Amino acid sequence: MGVNSNRVEHMDNHETIINFQVMPALQIHAVQLPPQQTTLHKFRHRVSEIFFPDDPLFRFKNQTCFKKFLLALQYLFPIFQWAPQYNLTLLRSDLISGLTIASLAIPQGISYAKLANLPPILGLYSSFVPPLIYSLLGSSRHLGVGPVSIASLVMGSMLSETISYTRDPILYLGLAFTATFFAGVFQTSLGILRLGFVIDFLSKATLVGFTGGAAIIVSLQQLKGLLGIVHFTSKMQIIPVLISVFKQRNEWSWQTILLGFGFLAFLLTTRHISLRKPKLFWVSAAAPLTSVILSTILVFLLRNKTHQISVIGHLPKGVNPPSSNMLYFSGPYLALAIKTGIITGILSLTVSCLLVTYIISFRLTITLIPPNFLVCQEGIAVGRTFASLQNYQVDGNKEMMAIGLMNIVGSCSSCYVTTGSFSRSAVNYNAGAQTTVSNIIMAAAVLVTLLFLMPLFYYTPNVVLAAIIITAVIGLIDYQSAYKLWKVDKLDFVACLCSFFGVLFISVPLGLGIAIAISVLKILLHVTRPNTLVLGNIPGTQIFHNINQYKEALRVPSFLILAVESPIYFANSTYLQERILRWVREEEENIKANNGAPLKCIVLDMTAVTAIDTSGLDTLCELRKMLEKRMLQLVLANPVGNVVEKLHKTKILDSFGLKGVYLTVGEAVADISSSWKAQP
Amino acid sequence: MGVNSNRVEHMDNHETIINFQVMPALQIHAVQLPPQQTTLHKFRHRVSEIFFPDDPLFRFKNQTCFKKFLLALQYLFPIFQWAPQYNLTLLRSDLISGLTIASLAIPQGISYAKLANLPPILGLYSSFVPPLIYSLLGSSRHLGVGPVSIASLVMGSMLSETISYTRDPILYLGLAFTATFFAGVFQTSLGILRLGFVIDFLSKATLVGFTGGAAIIVSLQQLKGLLGIVHFTSKMQIIPVLISVFKQRNEWSWQTILLGFGFLAFLLTTRHISLRKPKLFWVSAAAPLTSVILSTILVFLLRNKTHQISVIGHLPKGVNPPSSNMLYFSGPYLALAIKTGIITGILSLTVSCLLVTYIISFRLTITLIPPNFLVCQEGIAVGRTFASLQNYQVDGNKEMMAIGLMNIVGSCSSCYVTTGSFSRSAVNYNAGAQTTVSNIIMAAAVLVTLLFLMPLFYYTPNVVLAAIIITAVIGLIDYQSAYKLWKVDKLDFVACLCSFFGVLFISVPLGLGIAIAISVLKILLHVTRPNTLVLGNIPGTQIFHNINQYKEALRVPSFLILAVESPIYFANSTYLQERILRWVREEEENIKANNGAPLKCIVLDMTAVTAIDTSGLDTLCELRKMLEKRMLQLVLANPVGNVVEKLHKTKILDSFGLKGVYLTVGEAVADISSSWKAQP
Repeated sequence: MGVNSNRVEHMDNHETIINFQVMPALQIHAVQLPPQQTTLHKFRHRVSEIFFPDDPLFRFKNQTCFKKFLLALQYLFPIFQWAPQYNLTLLRSDLISGLTIASLAIPQGISYAKLANLPPILGLYSSFVPPLIYSLLGSSRHLGVGPVSIASLVMGSMLSETISYTRDPILYLGLAFTATFFAGVFQTSLGILRLGFVIDFLSKATLVGFTGGAAIIVSLQQLKGLLGIVHFTSKMQIIPVLISVFKQRNEWSWQTILLGFGFLAFLLTTRHISLRKPKLFWVSAAAPLTSVILSTILVFLLRNKTHQISVIGHLPKGVNPPSSNMLYFSGPYLALAIKTGIITGILSLTVSCLLVTYIISFRLTITLIPPNFLVCQEGIAVGRTFASLQNYQVDGNKEMMAIGLMNIVGSCSSCYVTTGSFSRSAVNYNAGAQTTVSNIIMAAAVLVTLLFLMPLFYYTPNVVLAAIIITAVIGLIDYQSAYKLWKVDKLDFVACLCSFFGVLFISVPLGLGIAIAISVLKILLHVTRPNTLVLGNIPGTQIFHNINQYKEALRVPSFLILAVESPIYFANSTYLQERILRWVREEEENIKANNGAPLKCIVLDMTAVTAIDTSGLDTLCELRKMLEKRMLQLVLANPVGNVVEKLHKTKILDSFGLKGVYLTVGEAVADISSSWKAQP
Repeated sequence: MGVNSNRVEHMDNHETIINFQVMPALQIHAVQLPPQQTTLHKFRHRVSEIFFPDDPLFRFKNQTCFKKFLLALQYLFPIFQWAPQYNLTLLRSDLISGLTIASLAIPQGISYAKLANLPPILGLYSSFVPPLIYSLLGSSRHLGVGPVSIASLVMGSMLSETISYTRDPILYLGLAFTATFFAGVFQTSLGILRLGFVIDFLSKATLVGFTGGAAIIVSLQQLKGLLGIVHFTSKMQIIPVLISVFKQRNEWSWQTILLGFGFLAFLLTTRHISLRKPKLFWVSAAAPLTSVILSTILVFLLRNKTHQISVIGHLPKGVNPPSSNMLYFSGPYLALAIKTGIITGILSLTVSCLLVTYIISFRLTITLIPPNFLVCQEGIAVGRTFASLQNYQVDGNKEMMAIGLMNIVGSCSSCYVTTGSFSRSAVNYNAGAQTTVSNIIMAAAVLVTLLFLMPLFYYTPNVVLAAIIITAVIGLIDYQSAYKLWKVDKLDFVACLCSFFGVLFISVPLGLGIAIAISVLKILLHVTRPNTLVLGNIPGTQIFHNINQYKEALRVPSFLILAVESPIYFANSTYLQERILRWVREEEENIKANNGAPLKCIVLDMTAVTAIDTSGLDTLCELRKMLEKRMLQLVLANPVGNVVEKLHKTKILDSFGLKGVYLTVGEAVADISSSWKAQP
C-alpha cells in the first residue's frame, strides 16, 4: 500500500529527479579498500576486542618497571590502592556503615541459609569469611558481600531434589560446600579467561521474568513457616506447594500465623516508608534486626504457653569450622555438585548485573533504592554501577576472580555461595561507606555475634525469618518493568512471560534454561530475518531514506533502492535473496499497474551490512547474475571496510565493474542516470 | 596509530571544517517517527516475514474462487500444472533422461543400501516408490529422487552403534523404517509449519568440513570391501577403522584387491573425463552400471576359481513388500529411531542446500557439474537452483512437504530415507529431462529390474559397490573450498576444520552437533562484539566515512563521530557502553598529547543500529548521563524507524532534546558547530 501511494507521488515529482541530476559539483568518490593487515594482526585485534574490550591494562602503558610492579600489585590487591591514604575520617564513615549492614546481614544470613535448606548458622559463617576475603581482593568500595536469596533458593532446590538434609545432613552439607567450591572455580576461571561477557547472554527481559517467578516460589515456600506447617512438600513448583499448604490445614497454628503476619505487616510498612522517603533508608535497614529481637523476647516471655511456635533452637558458638575435608571430588553426587555450582555461580554473577543496570536507568539514582528492595544481587554489576556513579572504573573480569576466590575460600570454611548483595550494597552506600573496610567491620560484628550472642537466638521464631524473606524478595516481582516491556517491545515481554511461567510451573534451573534459550533464539531470529527497506530521495538533498518513515522521501524512477539492515550471513542469505527478488517482482508489478518508467537498476545500500561471510558473498554474486538475466543492473552503495575487502578477495568486486560500486546511494543514482542520458 | 596520524592531518586541515560550516543551503531535516501501527498489524507483519518471506500465495491475489481452487490444486499437485500441456516431444526427452538416471540409480541404490548396513535390495525399493510419489507432489522438474550417501551413512552409523544387522535383522530393518517414517514426519512438519529456514543454520563452511569428514569416513569404511576383509569394526571413527584394516591383514585377498582397484581406477578415470568435458557427462553416468555388468560377468566366468571374492548373492524378486507393520511406535528403541529420523531428515534437507548454492556460484553453471561429482544431496536446494536457472520458482517449504510425504509413504513400502540426489539431478538435467515424468520412467526401469533382472546380480562382487561408493563420495572432499575459506574468512575456516575433525575423530552425529554449535556461536560472537568505527568528513562533501578505510576522511575538531555497526541488544549493550567510553578516553588522551581543541560532542551514527531492545535503550540513556557528567554532549544521527519509535515510547528521545537527534551526521556537525559559534 505504501508502495502504491509513493509511486503516485513520485510520478508527479519527476522534476525533482532532474533537478537532482543537474545539481552542480557532483563528484564521484571511489570506494576504497581498508589498509592491508596481516592475518596475525587481524587475529590479535579480534582477540583483544573479544577478551579485552575495556583495555584493562591501559594504565600500564609507558611506565617504568617498578611502577608497573606497583600497579600490578594494586590491580590484584586493590587494598594497596587506598590503604596508604586511609585515615580516621574514613574509618568513622566505614564504622557506621559497617555496623548498619551488620544489623541487616545477621537476620538475612540466618534466613537465607534456611532458604537453601541449610542450618541457619551457615548464613552467619557466610557473612564472616567472604567479606574479609573480598575486602582484600575486591575493587568495588561499596559492595556488601554475603549470601543472596536467588542463589540460596536455587542451591536448595537443586540439592533437595536428589537428597534431603534431614535424612543425610553430612552428605547435604558436603554437597553444598562442593557446589560452592565449583561455583568459585567457575567464576574464577570465567574471570581469568576473560569470558565474563557470557553473563550478558541473559537478557534483562528474561531475568525480570525469572526473578519474578523465583520470588513467588520463595514466598510460597515461606507459607510453611508463616502458617506453622510441619509436614511440607520438598517440591518447588507452584502447584504441589499450594496443594501442600491446603492439605495440611490441620497443622496451621493460629499463634504462628498471628506472629508471622504481624511482623510481616511491620516489615512491609518499614519497606514502604523507605521506598517513599529514601532518606529514611535506615528504617527498613534496621527493621529485620528489630523484628528478630522483638519476636525473640516475645517468644521467650510466652515460652510456657506457645509450644506451637517453632524456634531456631540451639546454635553452636564459635567461628567457622574448616570444611575442606567435607568436599566431594568423586562419588555419584559429584555431577550434581558441579551442576549446582555452575548454575548458582552464573546466577549469582548474572541476575543483578542486569537488574542493576535496569534499576539505575529506570529509577534514576541508587539512593532511591531502599534496602530490601532488591536483595538477590551480584558483585560485578553492583560494583560497576556504584563505580560509574563515583567515577572510578571497575574491571568486571577482575571482580569475577575476586568473587570466585571468595567462594573457593568460603567452601573450605563452612560458607555457602556468597556474592555482592544488592540490599547490603545499597545500605552500605547510603550509610556512607568509603572503602571495603566497612566489610571488615561487618565481619567483625558477625564475629562477635558468633562468639558471644548465639544463645540469644535460641527463642527466635522461624516465622519471623519467613517474614524477613518475603519482605526481601517481594521487590523482585517487578510488574512495572514487565508492563514497560509490554509497551516497548512485545517480543521481550513474551520472553519475560516464558521464563516467569517456566520457573513457576516447571523448575528453577529449567526456567533459567528457558530464559537463556529464549534470549539466544531472539538474537538468532533477528539475524535470520533482517529488515530490507525501500529508500527514497529527500528532495533537494543527496539524502536517501526509508520511504515508510519519511513521507517526503520520493522514489527515483527506474531505480529500486534497497537497504539491507543486517550483516549477510549463511543464516539469512537465502532469505535475503528471496526477499530482494520479491521486492523486484512487486516493484515491477506496481510499475505495470501504474504505467511507470520501466525498472532498470537495483541499488543495494550496504551501509548496515557490517559483515559478510562466504555464503553471503555467493548470494550477492548469484543475485547479480539472476538480475542480469532480467536485464536489471545491480549496484552496491557504501560497502564498509571488511565487506569491500572480502568482495575484493573473491574477485566479486571485479565482476561488478567500475560502475557497480559507489560510495553513496546519491552518487550511484546520479552517475547511473546521467550515463543513461548519454546513451539512451 | 591510525588515531594519531589522522589527528595530525586534521590539525593541518582546519579550514576544511570552516568551509564545511559555511556551505550554503544547509537545511536541517527533522528525524521522523514511522507511521503508527497497531500491535496486531506489527505482529502480522513480523509473522509473515518469518514464515512467508517468499509470499507463496501471491498468485492467489485478486483471483476468482474457481481460479483459486485450480491454483490450490496446482500448488499441492504440481502435476496439474504441466500435465495438460504434456506431449510426445516432452515424453521423448523424459524417456531418454529417465533411462539414463535409471542406469545410475540401480548400482547407486544397491551401494548406498550397503552403506546404511541394509540389505542391497532396499536401495532398489527406495528407487522405485519415492520417485513415483515425488513426481506427483514435487514442483522441481529436474530433481532425481533416491537414497543419498550422507543420509545412508548417518543412518547406518547411528543404528549400528546400538544394534547389529547381522544379529537382529528384523529389529534393525524395523528401526530403519521407523527412522525413515520420523524423518518424513519431521520434514513434513517443517514444511507445514513453514520452518524450512532452520536448515539455514548450518553454515556452508561447517558443511564443507562435515561432508569432507563424512566422505573420508565412508571411503575408509569401503576398505573393508576393497581389501576383502571379513571381520571389520562396526565403529565409524578414523582410528578404530585404520586399526581394524591393519590388524586383519591376514584376511586381505589379492583377487579382491586387484578387481577393486581395477574398477576404482576405471571409475575415477570416467569421472575425470566428465569433469574435464561436461558434454561427456554420460561417460561417468554410465560407468557404474558398466562396472557392475563387467565385474559380474568376470566373477561369473571365474566362479570356480575365485571363492575369495564376496558377491551380493541372492536378491528376492518382486516389488516393494509393505512394511507398515514393521514400524515401532513403542519400546526401548523408539527414542533411537526418532533421533536417527530427525538427524537424517534434517541432514538430507540441509547438506546439499548449501553445497548446491556454493557449487552454482563457484563453478558458474550446473552443466559443469558431472554426475557423481556430488552425490549426497538434497531436494529443495537442488530444486531451487535448477529452478532459478530455468526461471521458474520453487517454494522450499512446499518441497519439504513433498519430500517428507515421500519418506512417510516410503517407510510403509520398505524404503529407507530418500531425497533429491545431486548426481541423479545433474544427470537428469544434462540428459534433457523436461518434467517429473523422467522420475516415473526411472521408477519403471527399476520396476523391470526388480521383477525380472534380480538373479543377474547374484555374482555382482561387493568390491565393485565399494569402488562405486568411493568414486561417488570423493568429490565431497572439497579442499578447494576449504582453501578459499582460509583465504576469505579465517573464522569460517576454523569452523570448517572443527566440524571436519569432529566427524573424523568423534562421531558423525556429534560432528554435526559441533558444526551447528559453531555456526550459532559465530553469530553470537558477532552480535556480542560489534564493530565501532570512528568517522571523518570527506572534504568538500557532507559524507562521513570510516577514517581507517578512507585516508582522505578528516576528523572534525571537538567532535568524536562514532558509528555503531550492529543492533544494540542485551548481549552487547555492556560491551558497547564500555567501548564507547574507551573511545572517548583515548580521544581525550590524544587531544591532550597533541594540544588539540577540547572534545565537546560525541555523535553516534545510528544508521547500522537496525534494532534496539530494552537493555540497549537503558545503555543509551546511561551513556548520555555519564557523558553529560564529563561535560560532553551526546548526539544521535539517523536513527532508523523502529529505533526512533522505541526511543520515543520510552521518552528517551525527549531527554535528548531538540538538538540531540539529527537526520545525518553532516547536519549534526554543521548545526552543533554553528550553535557553538553563536554562543562561544
